[in-house]
Amino acid sequence: MTNTTPQFSGVIPPVVTPRTADGGLDLAGLEAVVEHLVSGGVHGLFPLGSSGETPYLTDRERGEVLGAVVSATSGRVPLLVGANEQTTPRVIEEALRVQRAGADAVVVTSPYYALSDHHEVLRHFRAVRAAVDVPVFAYDVPVRTHYKLEPALLAELAAEGTIAGVKDSSGNDIAFRQLRLLTRDLEGFALFTGHEVVCDQAMLGGADGLVPGLANVDPAGYRRLYDAGLAGDWAAARAEQDRLIDLFTIVTTPDAGRVSGGAGGLGAFKTALVELGVIGSNRMSAPMESLNASESGRIRSILAGAGLV
Amino acid sequence: MTNTTPQFSGVIPPVVTPRTADGGLDLAGLEAVVEHLVSGGVHGLFPLGSSGETPYLTDRERGEVLGAVVSATSGRVPLLVGANEQTTPRVIEEALRVQRAGADAVVVTSPYYALSDHHEVLRHFRAVRAAVDVPVFAYDVPVRTHYKLEPALLAELAAEGTIAGVKDSSGNDIAFRQLRLLTRDLEGFALFTGHEVVCDQAMLGGADGLVPGLANVDPAGYRRLYDAGLAGDWAAARAEQDRLIDLFTIVTTPDAGRVSGGAGGLGAFKTALVELGVIGSNRMSAPMESLNASESGRIRSILAGAGLV
Amino acid sequence: MTNTTPQFSGVIPPVVTPRTADGGLDLAGLEAVVEHLVSGGVHGLFPLGSSGETPYLTDRERGEVLGAVVSATSGRVPLLVGANEQTTPRVIEEALRVQRAGADAVVVTSPYYALSDHHEVLRHFRAVRAAVDVPVFAYDVPVRTHYKLEPALLAELAAEGTIAGVKDSSGNDIAFRQLRLLTRDLEGFALFTGHEVVCDQAMLGGADGLVPGLANVDPAGYRRLYDAGLAGDWAAARAEQDRLIDLFTIVTTPDAGRVSGGAGGLGAFKTALVELGVIGSNRMSAPMESLNASESGRIRSILAGAGLV
Amino acid sequence: MTNTTPQFSGVIPPVVTPRTADGGLDLAGLEAVVEHLVSGGVHGLFPLGSSGETPYLTDRERGEVLGAVVSATSGRVPLLVGANEQTTPRVIEEALRVQRAGADAVVVTSPYYALSDHHEVLRHFRAVRAAVDVPVFAYDVPVRTHYKLEPALLAELAAEGTIAGVKDSSGNDIAFRQLRLLTRDLEGFALFTGHEVVCDQAMLGGADGLVPGLANVDPAGYRRLYDAGLAGDWAAARAEQDRLIDLFTIVTTPDAGRVSGGAGGLGAFKTALVELGVIGSNRMSAPMESLNASESGRIRSILAGAGLV
Repeated sequence: MTNTTPQFSGVIPPVVTPRTADGGLDLAGLEAVVEHLVSGGVHGLFPLGSSGETPYLTDRERGEVLGAVVSATSGRVPLLVGANEQTTPRVIEEALRVQRAGADAVVVTSPYYALSDHHEVLRHFRAVRAAVDVPVFAYDVPVRTHYKLEPALLAELAAEGTIAGVKDSSGNDIAFRQLRLLTRDLEGFALFTGHEVVCDQAMLGGADGLVPGLANVDPAGYRRLYDAGLAGDWAAARAEQDRLIDLFTIVTTPDAGRVSGGAGGLGAFKTALVELGVIGSNRMSAPMESLNASESGRIRSILAGAGLV
Repeated sequence: MTNTTPQFSGVIPPVVTPRTADGGLDLAGLEAVVEHLVSGGVHGLFPLGSSGETPYLTDRERGEVLGAVVSATSGRVPLLVGANEQTTPRVIEEALRVQRAGADAVVVTSPYYALSDHHEVLRHFRAVRAAVDVPVFAYDVPVRTHYKLEPALLAELAAEGTIAGVKDSSGNDIAFRQLRLLTRDLEGFALFTGHEVVCDQAMLGGADGLVPGLANVDPAGYRRLYDAGLAGDWAAARAEQDRLIDLFTIVTTPDAGRVSGGAGGLGAFKTALVELGVIGSNRMSAPMESLNASESGRIRSILAGAGLV
Repeated sequence: MTNTTPQFSGVIPPVVTPRTADGGLDLAGLEAVVEHLVSGGVHGLFPLGSSGETPYLTDRERGEVLGAVVSATSGRVPLLVGANEQTTPRVIEEALRVQRAGADAVVVTSPYYALSDHHEVLRHFRAVRAAVDVPVFAYDVPVRTHYKLEPALLAELAAEGTIAGVKDSSGNDIAFRQLRLLTRDLEGFALFTGHEVVCDQAMLGGADGLVPGLANVDPAGYRRLYDAGLAGDWAAARAEQDRLIDLFTIVTTPDAGRVSGGAGGLGAFKTALVELGVIGSNRMSAPMESLNASESGRIRSILAGAGLV
Repeated sequence: MTNTTPQFSGVIPPVVTPRTADGGLDLAGLEAVVEHLVSGGVHGLFPLGSSGETPYLTDRERGEVLGAVVSATSGRVPLLVGANEQTTPRVIEEALRVQRAGADAVVVTSPYYALSDHHEVLRHFRAVRAAVDVPVFAYDVPVRTHYKLEPALLAELAAEGTIAGVKDSSGNDIAFRQLRLLTRDLEGFALFTGHEVVCDQAMLGGADGLVPGLANVDPAGYRRLYDAGLAGDWAAARAEQDRLIDLFTIVTTPDAGRVSGGAGGLGAFKTALVELGVIGSNRMSAPMESLNASESGRIRSILAGAGLV
């Protein structure tokens, strides 16, 4: 962490997007998820991220999702919103849409499908920043974009004021730590980790915020972890983290080879929310398969073991 | 090749998308490119592909580009049109748009940014096929999608009638040949190669069509290559191919590290079209950099050496 | 091909290394394989390559294998011999060993396990060349070394006389064709393909030699393919190639997930040689698993279908 | 950490291998390095690892290096020794050699250059364990082997007693943490991190040992970091780690593109040892380039800034 608290920090879950059993958006369920998260003590929400199945949402659905989140949140916590598109001109259009709909910040990846280099990535973030009125977060997710945002590039964008922070889902704790040191003198620059199982370690290494998909299931657990880390009680943070790692085994419940890794992880979060009574269906976006009854049963057992049901 | 000629075959260039010097679409230039290609003897056109900078076009621009190509082509050759989006629901919307605008077939990749598996990719192509009324081509471009479409998967989609053909830009001639043998009894199933420098080899291995970006520059050369291959005159096909490989060195003219590989390749095609007098500017879509005067000079020399200017 | 015939050309199989049922080297079997290949009309032999399970052989075993091949070949065809080690100093030691044992040329990869760059790879090949008295072939096998030998680098080594040729197992026909054009004026510089299923295409693109593992099973088939290509009878070459692609399906006979891809491919070659009566056991080197009875049965059927048994 | 202290734990540097200016081994320098490390408070030594340029050492050199380390250490701390070879039969021969020379444990990667699967990797470690009399550590270094040792596989090998610990250089803190939880009930099972810049985080996540190459330069610093972590003084551990991250910038001093990443990192460690007066030359093994005078000057400045010279 830097000395100055960033504008955005704390637990900021990437909000899942519920669907009804027939495949349509479940906006009432989405509002229930928002209520579940806010009442769980989160500091912000990140709708239209990868955990929200955003790549699978049509433009119309994205608008409906964000509208429902804005309405349900009603200003109680800030909204960092994904602008998930493949290149600069399309990201700018999407970023302007979510800004108009109420985003307090936009979260943007480097170009994908497009084949970019260092110079194009710099121009990309600068052009997005110039086009919008809210802070821009860089989202580093090379497993999806196949382009790692290197610490030196991010530090350059940070120092010039192009980006206000980074959401790191790169699985690379070494680059994360180096970025923290490169930006230690930039007041208010924010570093978030997107990984469920190393939040305590990331906070020790300087993370300001936690954006784990599993926080959809147990927001209060991540809030306790965050508070312990903030207080420097690392033993307590570690104990809470270890408990959440056990809970995270819900993502390994699908039968081998039956669903993709993406569908298995997000499907487990949705299934857990069904078991917790927050939403009514664990239906996934096409072409992803939903988890079945036996997989749901295993998730119920894990939730029970964790004392959540 | 199979015994029955496919509905689509021959030289089908992926059409570049010209921009004016100020960055807007150059629709008059695009019409000139269409004329240059049709008069060069091509058998079809592939607008809204990667060579058309489609990942960088907004929805509105995509509509304008396709409208101009449809209008300029005026039915003289068929149009295979890219429906470039990241997942099934979004591809379907895009495919329906290009179908309404006049596509004779749609060209579709596997999901990207999304993390898919074998089952989701099968469902993806089947869902797209069910949604449209025109033939669907699978576009195998793992350098962009990071998902290789394996021969067995493609052969399954071919045998059940989901896809009418494959545009292969995988750089994997081994899988291409195996796919050809796996589909040899499927009448009319079409295999296209997207690679500039091995068209003769690909035809010997069974390719029905050629979709090289360089055909924007020298459509007549690829037409001669194709005709020689079709006639079994492999020595002539090879000689023409070797000449085109020399021409293809235009993509290596940018100064080292100045522009990305993508910008360098497509920028070279556009610059060559400027030098040939077909279009007025080599301007690229943001955030890609355009080639500069010294790079243009080197391209002019190569074109002169090839007898094209 | 260049105008001058290279010193080495034609069909040069990478010789398998038979083991007895108890896991020891089967040197009598190895001599039988050599006889099978030479009588099948091959132009050279490539012992101690990947198909020879060389990574799995101890130093003592490598010596015994090469001794047996030298003895059984008795000078009837030249021997290109792998010097399979991870860095320059170790490759040089290995290259000197195989040279002393009778190699007519050594075949060398770029460093592996070590993390190299362009400059180190150039120095590597130059140092090996300076240390030995026989021609050096570069072996491009990025699936193993994770370092693609780019055409420009190979052309530089070729032009200065460091390497006499390249064995290409990169699966990248585009780079192969570009390398052929870059070296077209270098008299005697040799390009070999290591791929079973595109030998006709590779010859059309300029290959001088064929080094397919499947030639262990059907050397005469690859000889016919090569002779047809050399004569410019591409229709005959293609027909022979298509027949050999069908034969190559022996490598897909192992039950899904039971053995690794490497063990499945090499195990199929050995099993076919057992079925052909050339050797007595299909035993693999540790830790690879050998093919079982049902898998052998499927291979027997494919051989029968191909008229080989 | 588990409740029972493992047999090996603490700071265990991967020992560099000095060379004289003419390229020969500098065994006196190596003994000085050992003395520098032991007097710096390290708990063990790891000779013949990647930092020791082991991939570049001939068999004879490996023997000489290990002999010198055994002699210089004289039993003061235990020796974990790399058995760096590409497949099971060759690793076993190497492991027996280092065991005879005095290794207290052997450190072994999965096969490389060879193309393995899950089953072969399991058999590999089991066969090595059966062949030696000392504990076996798995070395997870996918940037070199291109095979990630997954937590479930390592936990299986740990539970059955095949491996006594893991040296993790995978850069994947998520898998590391999951492995720690999977093995929390295995008394004495040891987890080491090989990364310089996240040692505090790794200890919070359960690491028992630190194996950073940079500990060659500042063994006492890593000892302080380790002691702080062991005492649960995470603020002190973090402060020491941040200091060492600044020191680690010595690896970024080479001019861009002049030397490979491997040569740059290891060369920086050797150069720092020259500047500290421990050894006399920063000469690298062929084909790696040594750092030059201006690069050495930058390293001297960093060392001075860190108060080490």
